[in-house]
Amino acid sequence: MDVAMIGAGMIGRAWSISFARAGHDVRLWSKTPGRAQEAIGFVSSILPDLAANGLLRDQAPAAVLARITAVDELGAAVAGAGWVQENALEQVAIKRDIYERIDELAPRDAVIASSTSGIRPSEFTEGLPGRARCIVAHPLNPPYLVPAVDVVPSPWTTPETVERAVQVLTDIGQSPIVMSREDDAFVTIRLQGAILQEAFRLVDEGIASPEDVDRTIRDGLALRWSFIGPFETIDLNAPNGVRDFVGRFGESYAKMAREHGQLVDWFGPTLDVVEQHRRATLPMDDHRARQAWRDRRLMALVAHRRAIEDTLGR
Amino acid sequence: MDVAMIGAGMIGRAWSISFARAGHDVRLWSKTPGRAQEAIGFVSSILPDLAANGLLRDQAPAAVLARITAVDELGAAVAGAGWVQENALEQVAIKRDIYERIDELAPRDAVIASSTSGIRPSEFTEGLPGRARCIVAHPLNPPYLVPAVDVVPSPWTTPETVERAVQVLTDIGQSPIVMSREDDAFVTIRLQGAILQEAFRLVDEGIASPEDVDRTIRDGLALRWSFIGPFETIDLNAPNGVRDFVGRFGESYAKMAREHGQLVDWFGPTLDVVEQHRRATLPMDDHRARQAWRDRRLMALVAHRRAIEDTLGR
Repeated sequence: MDVAMIGAGMIGRAWSISFARAGHDVRLWSKTPGRAQEAIGFVSSILPDLAANGLLRDQAPAAVLARITAVDELGAAVAGAGWVQENALEQVAIKRDIYERIDELAPRDAVIASSTSGIRPSEFTEGLPGRARCIVAHPLNPPYLVPAVDVVPSPWTTPETVERAVQVLTDIGQSPIVMSREDDAFVTIRLQGAILQEAFRLVDEGIASPEDVDRTIRDGLALRWSFIGPFETIDLNAPNGVRDFVGRFGESYAKMAREHGQLVDWFGPTLDVVEQHRRATLPMDDHRARQAWRDRRLMALVAHRRAIEDTLGR
Repeated sequence: MDVAMIGAGMIGRAWSISFARAGHDVRLWSKTPGRAQEAIGFVSSILPDLAANGLLRDQAPAAVLARITAVDELGAAVAGAGWVQENALEQVAIKRDIYERIDELAPRDAVIASSTSGIRPSEFTEGLPGRARCIVAHPLNPPYLVPAVDVVPSPWTTPETVERAVQVLTDIGQSPIVMSREDDAFVTIRLQGAILQEAFRLVDEGIASPEDVDRTIRDGLALRWSFIGPFETIDLNAPNGVRDFVGRFGESYAKMAREHGQLVDWFGPTLDVVEQHRRATLPMDDHRARQAWRDRRLMALVAHRRAIEDTLGR
């Protein structure tokens, strides 16, 4: 599949690696002359490191690099593309303008995905004839190392487009998080925002320093979160799973939330949903075995940290 | 230094490994007969795995195990101890009762630390003659793998006790997070609570499934957080550091906070504190080099994940 990469800044160049590594030909275009060529220089400096870490799917850096071409015209980038990834500045007017041009030029069956981190797709696709194939695919930085991608449909994005987007992103090794509907904030942003709010509040109240906050996360919570998420973490932290955890600690968490003016359902139907999910994923009979697995994974992770700190520093 | 481990459940047995691995003799006591011996059985089953992962400071499992002894009397556990770690049930009355007995029996210069995850130390130490040496040292689970420990002084805990606690915990390989004062919730709990609130809210609103939330964290945010924290993450995610990041995205994060009824200072003195900290830690001249370091660490982490998933599963 041919991929049109629109914009060659930090995000566009990183996306190019994800797509090219998976075997797609990427045509990279920037409105700034020379920028696309510069981006290819950046890519070529990164590929050997990826190869050394076994992250190029057993390909030589040169083979991956050869799939990325800088083009001078938007039309040349988009012609024949099955996927268009737009990485323009985060301004609605700019997105509208570039989407209008892309929609005109792109093949009818192409998915047109935006890297926006916070604009609802409806805001810049509403008036387009091809708006049904437009969607948000918002990466974390850099996508060739961090798999999660917010996939956000507008009200008129077809289910087939969502399905296609999930398929393509999964195939290139990303981990698509599909939102059930568009919203002001995407899932990755909301979860990052939640941590940042509390981080700022701890500093604001003089309870902890920024370094304390970072250390709490990197020497504490995120060690587990990096391979099981927060729900699995609490599910494994009580002998009888997530409902048991909420029974033990839910009231103190809910109290914190109320003090911060938040109303979140910890005990009702939401807990039902969470518990059903956890038990479908992990029957209670396997709970202890999974705890043992978590500890072995943690050991390996800690051993990895030690070793890598010795070579790369901390 | 001799350590008295009071309580031999999930937390007490895990703490025993942290202390014994660092060379301390641990006397383990439980009010339930046979429980301490059982805990030693658990420890002996864990130590070979730790040794295999290079996490026993080059000691044989038997050498570490030999430092842990089950004792029948509280007095025998506490006599001559330089550190007492209390792991009783999370009820104020129970904590008060056991602290009264420990305070009577422990050497005057011993630190008496509680593993409580949510009770203010003042609530169970106020009336004690030796209350100045009492403190909270709340671990994450399990402390022999996850270094972060909340260190929470009561209003009458002496600075020397705090200092001693930090010293001992650091020496045994933990990462103490010292709260400037006691509060209803500790730093690790507040940050975990922030993520859980938003996780429950996303499920509650039907925006994402529990699995989506866990995947967003484990395939996304926590990969970076596990070796740089959230402040360093945003500091490295804008060309000119944390203030630049807040300038670009702060308003959307603040908007989310306001919608959730939260008032957090993102732009004023708190940002000054955060930025001063970041620039003291990482001068702007080193910013790009640190970004490159982050990417190399991420590559190594992703490579580690791939390899370990092949052997231990996901």
